[in-house]
Amino acid sequence: MAERIVVINPNCTQAVSAAIDAALQPWRMAGGPAIECVTLAEGPPGIETQAHVEQVVQPICRLVRARQDAGAFVIACFSDPGLHAAREVTARPVFGIAECGLLTALTLGERFGIVAILPSSLPRHLRYVRQLGLAGRFAGDLPLGLDVVELADEARAFERMVAVGARLKDDHGADVLVLGCAGMAQYRGALAAALGMPVVDPTQAAVTMAIGAVRQLHEGDG
Amino acid sequence: MAERIVVINPNCTQAVSAAIDAALQPWRMAGGPAIECVTLAEGPPGIETQAHVEQVVQPICRLVRARQDAGAFVIACFSDPGLHAAREVTARPVFGIAECGLLTALTLGERFGIVAILPSSLPRHLRYVRQLGLAGRFAGDLPLGLDVVELADEARAFERMVAVGARLKDDHGADVLVLGCAGMAQYRGALAAALGMPVVDPTQAAVTMAIGAVRQLHEGDG
Amino acid sequence: MAERIVVINPNCTQAVSAAIDAALQPWRMAGGPAIECVTLAEGPPGIETQAHVEQVVQPICRLVRARQDAGAFVIACFSDPGLHAAREVTARPVFGIAECGLLTALTLGERFGIVAILPSSLPRHLRYVRQLGLAGRFAGDLPLGLDVVELADEARAFERMVAVGARLKDDHGADVLVLGCAGMAQYRGALAAALGMPVVDPTQAAVTMAIGAVRQLHEGDG
Amino acid sequence: MAERIVVINPNCTQAVSAAIDAALQPWRMAGGPAIECVTLAEGPPGIETQAHVEQVVQPICRLVRARQDAGAFVIACFSDPGLHAAREVTARPVFGIAECGLLTALTLGERFGIVAILPSSLPRHLRYVRQLGLAGRFAGDLPLGLDVVELADEARAFERMVAVGARLKDDHGADVLVLGCAGMAQYRGALAAALGMPVVDPTQAAVTMAIGAVRQLHEGDG
Amino acid sequence: MAERIVVINPNCTQAVSAAIDAALQPWRMAGGPAIECVTLAEGPPGIETQAHVEQVVQPICRLVRARQDAGAFVIACFSDPGLHAAREVTARPVFGIAECGLLTALTLGERFGIVAILPSSLPRHLRYVRQLGLAGRFAGDLPLGLDVVELADEARAFERMVAVGARLKDDHGADVLVLGCAGMAQYRGALAAALGMPVVDPTQAAVTMAIGAVRQLHEGDG
Amino acid sequence: MAERIVVINPNCTQAVSAAIDAALQPWRMAGGPAIECVTLAEGPPGIETQAHVEQVVQPICRLVRARQDAGAFVIACFSDPGLHAAREVTARPVFGIAECGLLTALTLGERFGIVAILPSSLPRHLRYVRQLGLAGRFAGDLPLGLDVVELADEARAFERMVAVGARLKDDHGADVLVLGCAGMAQYRGALAAALGMPVVDPTQAAVTMAIGAVRQLHEGDG
Repeated sequence: MAERIVVINPNCTQAVSAAIDAALQPWRMAGGPAIECVTLAEGPPGIETQAHVEQVVQPICRLVRARQDAGAFVIACFSDPGLHAAREVTARPVFGIAECGLLTALTLGERFGIVAILPSSLPRHLRYVRQLGLAGRFAGDLPLGLDVVELADEARAFERMVAVGARLKDDHGADVLVLGCAGMAQYRGALAAALGMPVVDPTQAAVTMAIGAVRQLHEGDG
Repeated sequence: MAERIVVINPNCTQAVSAAIDAALQPWRMAGGPAIECVTLAEGPPGIETQAHVEQVVQPICRLVRARQDAGAFVIACFSDPGLHAAREVTARPVFGIAECGLLTALTLGERFGIVAILPSSLPRHLRYVRQLGLAGRFAGDLPLGLDVVELADEARAFERMVAVGARLKDDHGADVLVLGCAGMAQYRGALAAALGMPVVDPTQAAVTMAIGAVRQLHEGDG
Repeated sequence: MAERIVVINPNCTQAVSAAIDAALQPWRMAGGPAIECVTLAEGPPGIETQAHVEQVVQPICRLVRARQDAGAFVIACFSDPGLHAAREVTARPVFGIAECGLLTALTLGERFGIVAILPSSLPRHLRYVRQLGLAGRFAGDLPLGLDVVELADEARAFERMVAVGARLKDDHGADVLVLGCAGMAQYRGALAAALGMPVVDPTQAAVTMAIGAVRQLHEGDG
Repeated sequence: MAERIVVINPNCTQAVSAAIDAALQPWRMAGGPAIECVTLAEGPPGIETQAHVEQVVQPICRLVRARQDAGAFVIACFSDPGLHAAREVTARPVFGIAECGLLTALTLGERFGIVAILPSSLPRHLRYVRQLGLAGRFAGDLPLGLDVVELADEARAFERMVAVGARLKDDHGADVLVLGCAGMAQYRGALAAALGMPVVDPTQAAVTMAIGAVRQLHEGDG
Repeated sequence: MAERIVVINPNCTQAVSAAIDAALQPWRMAGGPAIECVTLAEGPPGIETQAHVEQVVQPICRLVRARQDAGAFVIACFSDPGLHAAREVTARPVFGIAECGLLTALTLGERFGIVAILPSSLPRHLRYVRQLGLAGRFAGDLPLGLDVVELADEARAFERMVAVGARLKDDHGADVLVLGCAGMAQYRGALAAALGMPVVDPTQAAVTMAIGAVRQLHEGDG
Repeated sequence: MAERIVVINPNCTQAVSAAIDAALQPWRMAGGPAIECVTLAEGPPGIETQAHVEQVVQPICRLVRARQDAGAFVIACFSDPGLHAAREVTARPVFGIAECGLLTALTLGERFGIVAILPSSLPRHLRYVRQLGLAGRFAGDLPLGLDVVELADEARAFERMVAVGARLKDDHGADVLVLGCAGMAQYRGALAAALGMPVVDPTQAAVTMAIGAVRQLHEGDG
């Protein structure tokens, strides 16, 4: 029985895959499913535009079709690229990190805020929140507004996350935050502590749900 | 000044493009914009799955980028494939036929029904109606449930449209219908007459809005 | 076949009708429908209160009934006075500029803002946005707050529009604006340029939809 | 201090006013406000179309302005004609029976059904339910579909009400009903008993709220 | 026939019951129902937490069951504790003050604001507004943020109410306020006057609806 | 570090706890958290009324407070009794099975149906779906309508589940089901197979989320 969760980083940046892999370490349990992070070779260095979102869909579907050994898949990009296309090409469950991150946030607060990287992602997030039917629980979405160099400076990046999170809390009424990117997990705990509110890493949320899906395959086992 | 509307049929079936072209004939006015229907060579014969929807996005974007002579674009597939990606690659307005068809329906009734071709499109339509924020005006969505051979039989196809439309009206409370496909325009008038309710052809709706956008370029003209 | 769109200015101020007429000039195309702007003699000088909205309903209905030569009607006041009453007295399509302006805005952005004239119109707009089922796409509504003398000063009026539009964008999250009055079309292009976001003139939006409706009458023509 | 509630029947049929008057008898208490039912001389025999709704607005406003002795007004027609216009011409509270009937229903069940007279009223009701922001609690709306002669036959009318109410309950999931007309109060109790579910007479609901508004004027009294 | 409304203060503080009793004095009319305020002996001194809300449910149900002489009940705490449980144990109508206060506010403005006592109540209020299906009319909810000593200083409390109400009006777009506590009725009129907008005392709103329910028992009387 | 999930069966029926315990067996992994099912001694034999829901809140809170050894709690009753009260008395995450079951269903379909036991639970479910802000994804809720003896007959119970699930699918448009009770897990797989659609056991969904919460405590571990 399939005992492996394949986490797909749809951009081609190995460092991002490595960061995701590290963030998922606690979700690897003896007796539990293997969790494998794979990098989509065909992906762009980062998913920043609607075109990026859509260009990775077919490669993701090919990868999903090829990995017959997987019990569940996670698409580790906050735009959930190819989520519904992938669900059509496999009978195994496929989880999107935005979907799972936002749904998990609903168990932790009344109104979620999203900490985004780029301003240009905001309309896409808005459309997705409405598509999910979750607009009634949405507080706001704010971008860090940092360029690549600034993002690479961890202290600077964290400082911005705290500032953006505080605005989501104070001005927009958010009482739980979701990190709007697969590559911010390392800041999750510190951000929650700094703001005094729960913060969800969406990849962890999706892998959690994938574990549940994989364990379901054991129902009826002695 | 750009005086041309490029209507993109994202499937590669010339007969569909020809049918679209014929349905748009009344929208061609001597002093109005040219309306050109193009077939996406890279498209599948029909857009039937989420994978089809996403595989045409990049070709659509390339086509949009290439057509600098266009004043506006219409994507003539009811899944509005690549709509937001295309909007990112051009400053000219891009219209999706589902978006325009549903919005136009709101001027003709309180609750719209969708006459779909395939049962498998229904979840995609549902997601899109929610994404557009129009769920409060949505009555229902029913598929014709005909295979390709049956669809080709016009009398049979029309008979099914009437039956499906009647169910949307009587059981789901629709008071306006939207044809859920670019290739059904030829039935629009007869279906409206048979059911006694307005029926929107989405490509006509989108081309109408595109004409408005193109005429806007003449503001301030003597 | 009826080839005329009758645009009804429901206030009795000829200068407003003239401004509307000028703004529609680009929508008059050789081979397309005639566009005729008429002033409602029975209307008040401006539609400023709920009572004004309702007192013009019967005169509008009489006018609609009398104009058998019209292929479509547009009611050119942002309160859409008498829209549903007029639809009951004619089989020809009737378009309200608020309805069409807001629907058209949905093709240009995620969340629309309304640039209103008077603070007292805001509750009426709120009710209408809810009635249309579009509250999930609504960002905000702000009045210019200028008196008649100030409005007549074009530079002053435009300055206020820019300030109000900027607040709708920055504080309310609007990414598309709708002009909340039939008489502001002359500022549309400049306002869009000044704010760097699309701006919809609602009368142009409604006339566009009316052209589509009138062209539909030619379906099946050679 | 004003101690009188003026209930306006906006149609000119005295028999309807008399029926309303009788239905309100229990709301007349020795120490409570006077409740006076007046017939709008300018009204049509019945409010059946959108045009009827709007033609009574100005007469209602005139009546409201004239009755300086009233502490509160109730507009006793389920289309709430002129409600917002009347609120602009008086500082005294004005209640619409549809508004109050639907709001009161929310205290008695999860999802309300409306028992309408005419099929043609349904779109108007739908628009109003959305305008009120109550669509999330709306189960359905069904017309009796009786002509005037049949309605006058009380046994026949009641039989239809029971049938329509049962369909709203069983097929649409309503667990509370609102009578969609000012003239059905006499059937309220029997209908509730026959269906085993609460039934709201909207005029009684509105007069109840008007009593509350009038008593508020006594706050601070010894 | 039962002619008594029992108003239950679910906290054990007699002074609160006395304040409620005083605020209801104008609702006592000759010929109308008796209005009796009772203090829940088992309640905490104040309902401040979700645990408080739930611990009073069973005592409220016992009290409701015991009072066979009541024609209607009002639960006078803005968390509407035990509302649905109480409705299960009696055939008589039971009204919650939050429910009735919010519904009544909808007759007085487009978007309601809530003046809360404690910041910790806000998530509970948010859940309740959504549960009622009224989120589309909700403007905001702000706490006074005063401790018990400060609340006891009437001038200080009123000053804070005005400040909080002004923020709800100016920053959140509220045009009607609801007092978020049973013990603030004494400030209602002055707050409305200071802010120039309607203010609803929820206990008065609920007792009003209870009077309507009790009078309904007299339908068909001579 | 706390490595134990305490699953609280809030009714006092040991057989239900045993069934829950068995259904969770696959979620117990060698390196994962312990999963302990406890029976609430103070609970009624079954949670069937709103009063039952509320009477277990305080015992649940006491139990939560007492179990300092737990890393997360699951309240295993589909009414999520005491969920928000329990969250106030512990810093550890508390999951309700209805909340988690419904949220998990959103990853598996567009519109969820609920298979309920008792007709009397439906209004409570409706209120909860609205409270969660998930009404836009809700298809329907149908009760099995079996008495205790019939429920005990497994073949009979399963037959009814299939019939009810088929109605939710065919008549209400559900494409994913949630079992509306903690005690139906044994039927999950067979029901999904019989209906050809995903079925969520809510307790499994909640324990999955609890595992995620507990693993989060290991972030930053070597």
